Amino acid sequence: MEYRNLGKSGLKVSEISLGGWVTFGHNVNDESMVRDIVLKAYESGVNFFDQADVYARGRSEELMGAVLRELPRHTLVISSKVFWPMSDDVNDRGLSRKHVLESIDKSLKRLGTDYLDIYFAHRYDENVPMEEIVMAFDHVVRSGRAMYWGTSMWPAARIAEAVEFAKAHGLYAPVTEQPEYSMLRRERVEKEILTYTHRAGVGLVVWSPLAMGMLTGKYDEGMPEGSRLTDNENWGKNFVTEENRQRVKTLKTIADELGITRAQLALAWVLRQPGVSSAITGATKVQQIEETVGASGVKLTDDVAARIDEILAS
Amino acid sequence: MEYRNLGKSGLKVSEISLGGWVTFGHNVNDESMVRDIVLKAYESGVNFFDQADVYARGRSEELMGAVLRELPRHTLVISSKVFWPMSDDVNDRGLSRKHVLESIDKSLKRLGTDYLDIYFAHRYDENVPMEEIVMAFDHVVRSGRAMYWGTSMWPAARIAEAVEFAKAHGLYAPVTEQPEYSMLRRERVEKEILTYTHRAGVGLVVWSPLAMGMLTGKYDEGMPEGSRLTDNENWGKNFVTEENRQRVKTLKTIADELGITRAQLALAWVLRQPGVSSAITGATKVQQIEETVGASGVKLTDDVAARIDEILAS
Amino acid sequence: MEYRNLGKSGLKVSEISLGGWVTFGHNVNDESMVRDIVLKAYESGVNFFDQADVYARGRSEELMGAVLRELPRHTLVISSKVFWPMSDDVNDRGLSRKHVLESIDKSLKRLGTDYLDIYFAHRYDENVPMEEIVMAFDHVVRSGRAMYWGTSMWPAARIAEAVEFAKAHGLYAPVTEQPEYSMLRRERVEKEILTYTHRAGVGLVVWSPLAMGMLTGKYDEGMPEGSRLTDNENWGKNFVTEENRQRVKTLKTIADELGITRAQLALAWVLRQPGVSSAITGATKVQQIEETVGASGVKLTDDVAARIDEILAS
Amino acid sequence: MEYRNLGKSGLKVSEISLGGWVTFGHNVNDESMVRDIVLKAYESGVNFFDQADVYARGRSEELMGAVLRELPRHTLVISSKVFWPMSDDVNDRGLSRKHVLESIDKSLKRLGTDYLDIYFAHRYDENVPMEEIVMAFDHVVRSGRAMYWGTSMWPAARIAEAVEFAKAHGLYAPVTEQPEYSMLRRERVEKEILTYTHRAGVGLVVWSPLAMGMLTGKYDEGMPEGSRLTDNENWGKNFVTEENRQRVKTLKTIADELGITRAQLALAWVLRQPGVSSAITGATKVQQIEETVGASGVKLTDDVAARIDEILAS
Repeated sequence: MEYRNLGKSGLKVSEISLGGWVTFGHNVNDESMVRDIVLKAYESGVNFFDQADVYARGRSEELMGAVLRELPRHTLVISSKVFWPMSDDVNDRGLSRKHVLESIDKSLKRLGTDYLDIYFAHRYDENVPMEEIVMAFDHVVRSGRAMYWGTSMWPAARIAEAVEFAKAHGLYAPVTEQPEYSMLRRERVEKEILTYTHRAGVGLVVWSPLAMGMLTGKYDEGMPEGSRLTDNENWGKNFVTEENRQRVKTLKTIADELGITRAQLALAWVLRQPGVSSAITGATKVQQIEETVGASGVKLTDDVAARIDEILAS
Repeated sequence: MEYRNLGKSGLKVSEISLGGWVTFGHNVNDESMVRDIVLKAYESGVNFFDQADVYARGRSEELMGAVLRELPRHTLVISSKVFWPMSDDVNDRGLSRKHVLESIDKSLKRLGTDYLDIYFAHRYDENVPMEEIVMAFDHVVRSGRAMYWGTSMWPAARIAEAVEFAKAHGLYAPVTEQPEYSMLRRERVEKEILTYTHRAGVGLVVWSPLAMGMLTGKYDEGMPEGSRLTDNENWGKNFVTEENRQRVKTLKTIADELGITRAQLALAWVLRQPGVSSAITGATKVQQIEETVGASGVKLTDDVAARIDEILAS
Repeated sequence: MEYRNLGKSGLKVSEISLGGWVTFGHNVNDESMVRDIVLKAYESGVNFFDQADVYARGRSEELMGAVLRELPRHTLVISSKVFWPMSDDVNDRGLSRKHVLESIDKSLKRLGTDYLDIYFAHRYDENVPMEEIVMAFDHVVRSGRAMYWGTSMWPAARIAEAVEFAKAHGLYAPVTEQPEYSMLRRERVEKEILTYTHRAGVGLVVWSPLAMGMLTGKYDEGMPEGSRLTDNENWGKNFVTEENRQRVKTLKTIADELGITRAQLALAWVLRQPGVSSAITGATKVQQIEETVGASGVKLTDDVAARIDEILAS
Repeated sequence: MEYRNLGKSGLKVSEISLGGWVTFGHNVNDESMVRDIVLKAYESGVNFFDQADVYARGRSEELMGAVLRELPRHTLVISSKVFWPMSDDVNDRGLSRKHVLESIDKSLKRLGTDYLDIYFAHRYDENVPMEEIVMAFDHVVRSGRAMYWGTSMWPAARIAEAVEFAKAHGLYAPVTEQPEYSMLRRERVEKEILTYTHRAGVGLVVWSPLAMGMLTGKYDEGMPEGSRLTDNENWGKNFVTEENRQRVKTLKTIADELGITRAQLALAWVLRQPGVSSAITGATKVQQIEETVGASGVKLTDDVAARIDEILAS
């Protein structure tokens, strides 16, 4: 496993990281299966474990935390997030100071750790002044509840605003952004986000680099029953189009030439960006870990990258 | 129940809130009656519970706290206040750093909570430098004892001074002001306070929106024995005048037209101001809660508002 | 008892305060005698109790603390100080960050309280940068170990430097200075200290306002065996001169006219300065408290003040 | 023993200090031997005990801590350091916020103390932004984990950058630098480091002032089996050259004239620099302490210094 600095920060994250989204607490509920997957990842060199309060409404944090707390804390980079509603309550959502501070304490308890390495604002909250958001996350870092903080799915201009506000006031600035980024969803990151973050030293950790599994080739023949994309119609419709199936099939030629799988190609492709620090993957089986971690260290030549661009643009 | 942001802050407060002033610890001393009233409010969507150390000399905090501590903390917005003397001691009053920090710890203990959502400076204190006041309340927020702080009955210029001093020094600024505001006491809020607070994003939570009950119509025929206004001569004299009784009777026509009570009309009227975040009501009976919460969401048309202006100016 | 704000701060201190210097742990060692004196002072309205680590090497703090901890904390203004060596150790002295932070924790323990109201830098320390001193005392306040901090026997220019450095960096500034001041030692306070402190709102709490007892008249006939001045040759020589004895005898005429004692006259005289917040007195007998507290509220007319000036200048 | 301020700070350190490097946990493993050495140093007036997490992988801290925790804490100046890998883990090294904060807590535990007096950044870390480094060490001081922080083996320009960044942002600045400095390694300190640190008030505490023992004369006849220099080939090759052996032999004449040993001459020589606050020595025998502490207070005349310069330049 290779490691990268999280943006310009001193924190090192594994190129391939493990997230608890839409797996743990969903189709992976068995504690021993979670243990096998997490330990496999850890033993394969994965050090970054990404969580959010909202993943399976806290259950994902609990399941992953039960395994992580047995490992040496300093070898782990544990993150969680806050924004999405955890109940119907009006204050149990968003980025108000009240919600941010109340939520991290609950995440810490569920995860069974004294501090997070990264605490993410899971979305931007237009209803809270930037000043309140940045001061709340600064408080999170200053009080020792987290080492660093970051944003997720924020517009580039808002990230810039947060960084600049923090610097102007001597507060802790966000060091990472977590956007969606994959071969099939590249525009926003490449056109908008990276333009600011790369220059500012804000490192990207990207989610859904396999486009919900589409890029692995598992939808080559259409959508099987019970797959994640079937469960989620909108995402499904966007990804599993005839054009995309065609593109993914064509990518197989390149993967084969390189002697890697399409999943590995897709992961190596997001990691070819120097502004990307880690690709977050999910896993429902131990074998998937073996495949994904194999993408670390794979370098794509300019020629290969150009051919991929062509396929994606087709 | 509808909710509003407390000024520009991210905190959501119910349009109708429940205060412990002149009720709990006074004519409502029975613990089970307090429980019934608080739970009725909570179940009706009230999330903001307003207290002060001085209400019944701490007894009101204790009575309300005994009920609130059984409810999920994150669903509550709990406030308290400091300024008025709690004993004859010279330092047991005002806004000195000593009194502010000593008082909040006592309020937290009486309420049975680890932190307040809002801590109010109950009056401005001319004897303490603005710098000492703002730094003491900043310390309250920074040390985790409260999420936000606010002012109560402060002159607009002093609120502005506090906000600007805080911003200039990177300190936590007040996000709310709690003034008296009702149909019968409108000038100061409309002419002085809102002019600054609305623009600055400082949200008003107003007390005595029913003018000590006068606006409900219960003094239509004069002052009954044992009413709150009888007990308090000065307030009584100011509110229960022949002119006011006449105005309140005339307002009944409008309330009847809208199919609401005069209490609801009076509450909807203060809430018509976008700069007002919540109307604080007291209750001595569960039934009063049913009436007051019914005011949330009632919108007054410009025509109705104009007719009310005319009545009040008559 | 009358009370004054400590300079421009919001803290109220009694005009007459009780110090533990050269009494408790010296000639007053009996715990029940300390109790009688402290309680007599407290019952007479004294709220400010002044200590230092070095008074009887910690014993004075212990003796006074044993009584104070039985009284309601918020009714007390407790101070202590740091600077003088507590042992032969090179770091057990002065105003280094190490010594300031280590010392206050020991004083808190000896006094049996969670926080001081005022922590004094007992002298200026030329060996420590102003920046280190102010940041250490700021840390004392910010960490909740003391409500305010002050200086003692500092040159006016150093007080000014500390105040300005603190303000320029958003740190807590000293709010009080504790100089020696009495009819027989007036020059420095009046010519140097007050010129800055009064304007800056730094309140003086003065020690030895009775010039080691000389101003009470007890040395009218020379120095008795076993008196404090005999024990301390230098102070003795400076105060108990023939000229001073003559002045003190002449002051008796004025005291008699006003129907007060010379001790009361001397205390009222230092309190005539609006820049002085409190006069610190020591006591070895309960009766002395009765006399000293009687000085609070005594106003000297301009005529009386002029006559005193004349006597002192003679 | 004589003491010096650590640079311009208020902290006093003994001219001769005891370090745990390459001795405790290496050839000195016996707990009672460590106790004898540490207590001998302490009784001889040494107050500064220098450690690092990496010395014998934590064992040196444990061995020294076991003795130090029996001595009055305020009489000790205890330091430790962070930077070098403590395991193979990617984040278990360097100056990231994560590693700095995780490491000091472990050092405090091994040493058995609540706070360090000085926490050193053991090397500069080019992979971490200066802002992150300074804010992490500021957090160390602000949270009470250390009284001061310093750098070790940093380029002068980086020390300057850290000091200036800290001052510009109101953060705690480093007050000391720990470089290698001896008669046989003088260029860097004299040409580069002191130029900045002396003027800026950053005090040097120097390691290896005896050039790994070479300057004591113990390699006069070549390198004995089992000596430290034999174990470490590079250092050995650099120091134990024919030229150096000749120089060290010539220095004996001067030492003899002054009636001191060559070790004492070498220590007095580094201490002749006013910008040096302490010389850190190691010891494997109690007798070595007797010799090294004897160097404190030895003043070299200009004439002697000139003769030494000549010998070293030969």
